[in-house]
Amino acid sequence: MTRTELGPAVVLVSGGLDSSVLLHHMVRALHREPVHALSFNYGQRHSKEIECAKWQCHAAGVAEHRVLDLSFLGEMIGDASALVAGGQPVPDLDELSRDQLDQPPTYVPNRNMMLLSIAGAYAEARQAQDVFYGAQALDEYGYWDCTISFLEGLNAVLRLNRREPITIHAPFIRMKKAETVKLGLELGVDFSHTWSCYRGGETACGACPTCVERLKAFREAGASDPLAYHG
Amino acid sequence: MTRTELGPAVVLVSGGLDSSVLLHHMVRALHREPVHALSFNYGQRHSKEIECAKWQCHAAGVAEHRVLDLSFLGEMIGDASALVAGGQPVPDLDELSRDQLDQPPTYVPNRNMMLLSIAGAYAEARQAQDVFYGAQALDEYGYWDCTISFLEGLNAVLRLNRREPITIHAPFIRMKKAETVKLGLELGVDFSHTWSCYRGGETACGACPTCVERLKAFREAGASDPLAYHG
Repeated sequence: MTRTELGPAVVLVSGGLDSSVLLHHMVRALHREPVHALSFNYGQRHSKEIECAKWQCHAAGVAEHRVLDLSFLGEMIGDASALVAGGQPVPDLDELSRDQLDQPPTYVPNRNMMLLSIAGAYAEARQAQDVFYGAQALDEYGYWDCTISFLEGLNAVLRLNRREPITIHAPFIRMKKAETVKLGLELGVDFSHTWSCYRGGETACGACPTCVERLKAFREAGASDPLAYHG
Repeated sequence: MTRTELGPAVVLVSGGLDSSVLLHHMVRALHREPVHALSFNYGQRHSKEIECAKWQCHAAGVAEHRVLDLSFLGEMIGDASALVAGGQPVPDLDELSRDQLDQPPTYVPNRNMMLLSIAGAYAEARQAQDVFYGAQALDEYGYWDCTISFLEGLNAVLRLNRREPITIHAPFIRMKKAETVKLGLELGVDFSHTWSCYRGGETACGACPTCVERLKAFREAGASDPLAYHG
């Protein structure tokens, strides 16, 4: 990633654990180069994460933070995803069958390609050559659009651009979530202003797939999660 | 395209000449299978084309037509494109330098990847396996996101989807625009309800790249364009 140390970059910030750590990591790695942060409202149940994204962008001192409204997706694809308000209920991790683990109900159709292609357009317009997102391929349940093949395939397409080929990077893609937690602690990330729970209640549920994964990551990192959990 | 004759499909309809012909072609080709049409407001100068898209969708009798609001793109990437209101002025075709022909000022950063990825999500949510768009690789001026390599690369990524791999088709990609005009005439497409001019005035300008190309296509097809042209 030598080249990326020299220029401005776009960073996708959902307000979750991984992207919040990524944001602080990139702001530090890029020194004085501007970081253009991008968040999306796509009708997700857990819209609280957008408030966390704003908080983290302010704390990290980004050049610009845009929250784009894709809330039409909620109505358009809501039936097909448990992650979108109005869709199916979010299952507990232990309710997922083995068959569902490779594309669970919380999968949002083609989400990452949508978000990354918009980020690519934003990067082109800002003369940034690099886009960063917080995907991890080693999640306990799998999303095809968080894999290394997905990333490499998308970059192969973006290289066809005749003027401004953009490269998408997922620096954490081979990391375990516990390592992300450790990195965040080193960087001084305030995890009380990150949100993971898919259910979007007042407090995190502690049972949905992402809560289970988050709690396990803190445990493995030998740290405690400052978020309040339900019950 | 045998498989596509059997299932519902998503068709991108800008309201321009090519996509209007494509829409009528697909509605006929798919018989009773539903066609879900998709248009986008991305802040284009020539928003008149959206009215044409609505007219054509009604005329073709689609199952559903959605016009999605991506107008935030105007502000976000406007400076980088002459096609977006508030951006640089649209040049005449004969003002373009040879160097500009491979990515002219009317290029909208990463537009087709954004629109096609949203169309892919829509297709997944509708259990449609196929998305159709009206790209032509043989345009006089080139857009990297209208090429066969772009299409093949994007399909390679979409094939990674573990449940609902979507295929994007561009049936006109190897056709000349004059052939599209001929096909449209055979299908009875009313070309007075299509819009191409990039400048978005009351009447088409006749001088911008797409007007020149459109007029040439009608001439080569031995037909006359029913649109009113300026002056």
